[in-house]
Amino acid sequence: MAFTPGFTGSVLDRVEAERLDPAIVPRLVAEGDALYLAMPDYEPATDDASLAWTALDAAIPADELVLLGRIDGRPRFTRLPGDIQPARRTPAVMALIDSLPPSDAATYGVARSLLDWHARHRFCAFCGNPSTPMRAGWARHCPACGTEHYPRTDPVVIMLAEYRRGDIAQVLVGRQPIFPPGRFSALAGFLEVGEAIEGAVARELFEEAGVRAGRIRYVASQPWPFPSQLMIACIAEVDDPTITLDTNELEDAKWVTRADVLAALAGEDGAPFLAPPSYAIAHTLLRAWAEGA
Amino acid sequence: MAFTPGFTGSVLDRVEAERLDPAIVPRLVAEGDALYLAMPDYEPATDDASLAWTALDAAIPADELVLLGRIDGRPRFTRLPGDIQPARRTPAVMALIDSLPPSDAATYGVARSLLDWHARHRFCAFCGNPSTPMRAGWARHCPACGTEHYPRTDPVVIMLAEYRRGDIAQVLVGRQPIFPPGRFSALAGFLEVGEAIEGAVARELFEEAGVRAGRIRYVASQPWPFPSQLMIACIAEVDDPTITLDTNELEDAKWVTRADVLAALAGEDGAPFLAPPSYAIAHTLLRAWAEGA
Ligand SMILES: [Zn+2]
Ligand SMILES: [Zn+2]
Repeated sequence: MAFTPGFTGSVLDRVEAERLDPAIVPRLVAEGDALYLAMPDYEPATDDASLAWTALDAAIPADELVLLGRIDGRPRFTRLPGDIQPARRTPAVMALIDSLPPSDAATYGVARSLLDWHARHRFCAFCGNPSTPMRAGWARHCPACGTEHYPRTDPVVIMLAEYRRGDIAQVLVGRQPIFPPGRFSALAGFLEVGEAIEGAVARELFEEAGVRAGRIRYVASQPWPFPSQLMIACIAEVDDPTITLDTNELEDAKWVTRADVLAALAGEDGAPFLAPPSYAIAHTLLRAWAEGA
Repeated sequence: MAFTPGFTGSVLDRVEAERLDPAIVPRLVAEGDALYLAMPDYEPATDDASLAWTALDAAIPADELVLLGRIDGRPRFTRLPGDIQPARRTPAVMALIDSLPPSDAATYGVARSLLDWHARHRFCAFCGNPSTPMRAGWARHCPACGTEHYPRTDPVVIMLAEYRRGDIAQVLVGRQPIFPPGRFSALAGFLEVGEAIEGAVARELFEEAGVRAGRIRYVASQPWPFPSQLMIACIAEVDDPTITLDTNELEDAKWVTRADVLAALAGEDGAPFLAPPSYAIAHTLLRAWAEGA
């Protein structure tokens, strides 16, 4: 099966090799056909529910431009955030994302994570001096100590425990107190230093729900731009369905059947829970499981 | 199939929930049976080729102790690095790792990545002021601006392109100039901001070898403590085996058969290449492919 989680499928060519050229920004600006995405307060300019690319304003200083890559061969830029506040995740931006074509949402995710990383990393963590952008916005450099800093991506494991008895298969969904009423989703947590994906899945399932993972299978992955996670979705088989809830993390958890999941994904009245939104990989994971992954 | 890559299989219980208690370090020290791993210059104390745990010296200040977790119920500590130099990867430490039992190598990996993260992050990247350790060594806090900082793990994709014609299957291995003579391995690269695993695999294969990935399947993962990567190993099917080498990254690449891989893994004289070391997930990935993954 092929899955297309939210924030994947961008048509952006990252031109990673080109980015190594220290003069790439002025060189691409000189090509004359570069386009620009305005992102005031991290929200993308849009036009008719698509990203609004405009001609690049030659007045923007080259060292404030961030090269996202090329689309249809044309260079695509945005600009470093003018103030130092990190991005906040607002209902307005989530609604906007829901309305964008998938490739545009994915391209926006790249831009948002990158700008937000700059906002959170103005100083060198090694020596405390101010650092400066380099590599067309894909790195920072500390003039004081010479350290180079690269954008950070935090791996997060997100998983369904699966319990089978005879012909009946069920998966475990949980509810955090901050969720909207009725919402249940896959359990999730940050992978820690020194862990493999499989170890983090087993640890999180045991910590949050007290269930012991057996065989673990990978399903799909997704970048999550709030601020910059790599979501890694798995299914973990369990032999004992007894739940011991960590009430610091979850206010409820329950086993649901394939019919329950399909009803939730279809948004049916009377479905036993409200499914996560379609751009969340928990949605993809539930659909994949319901369809046999 | 179940694979056990290097640096996995630690018997360490990370006691993640316990770590939230701000008084956990003095509390566990007071239990009286805590053990300590000395790590001068990031190299672990060993005894008869195992980690050498000794009674915790009560003279070490609590705010310099790093809680690794519990093994056999007993708290396990190490200590923040005394100077600010990040760790270097030396031939001596690689030989040592090769000699440790797998669980000990995995536990050492956790400790090494954590201490090295502190050494590289003494200052707040948001405001430039000195930060201080918190959460028993699993976070840092900036007293000046209040930002909390968590250890960093960088996802890396590592992959075999697979080309099948009739009954013959081959995978692509490449050679970096820094490799020992004869060594070939899986291709690899850092996942970038805004990428899914599958997107990063396809991008790296195309950039480094000019091959276009079709279906991608996940195989295994591994933490890599130099300094702190999450290695994500995949196999990518390709329809066209034509190689276009990026000579900035690789000095050679070639297609090898199952028999070639098995000869290399067995270290046979006359094998067509020298396999990566057993603690590298490239080794696990080659073995998994040769055994049918
Ligand atoms: Zn510096
Ligand atoms: Zn600060």
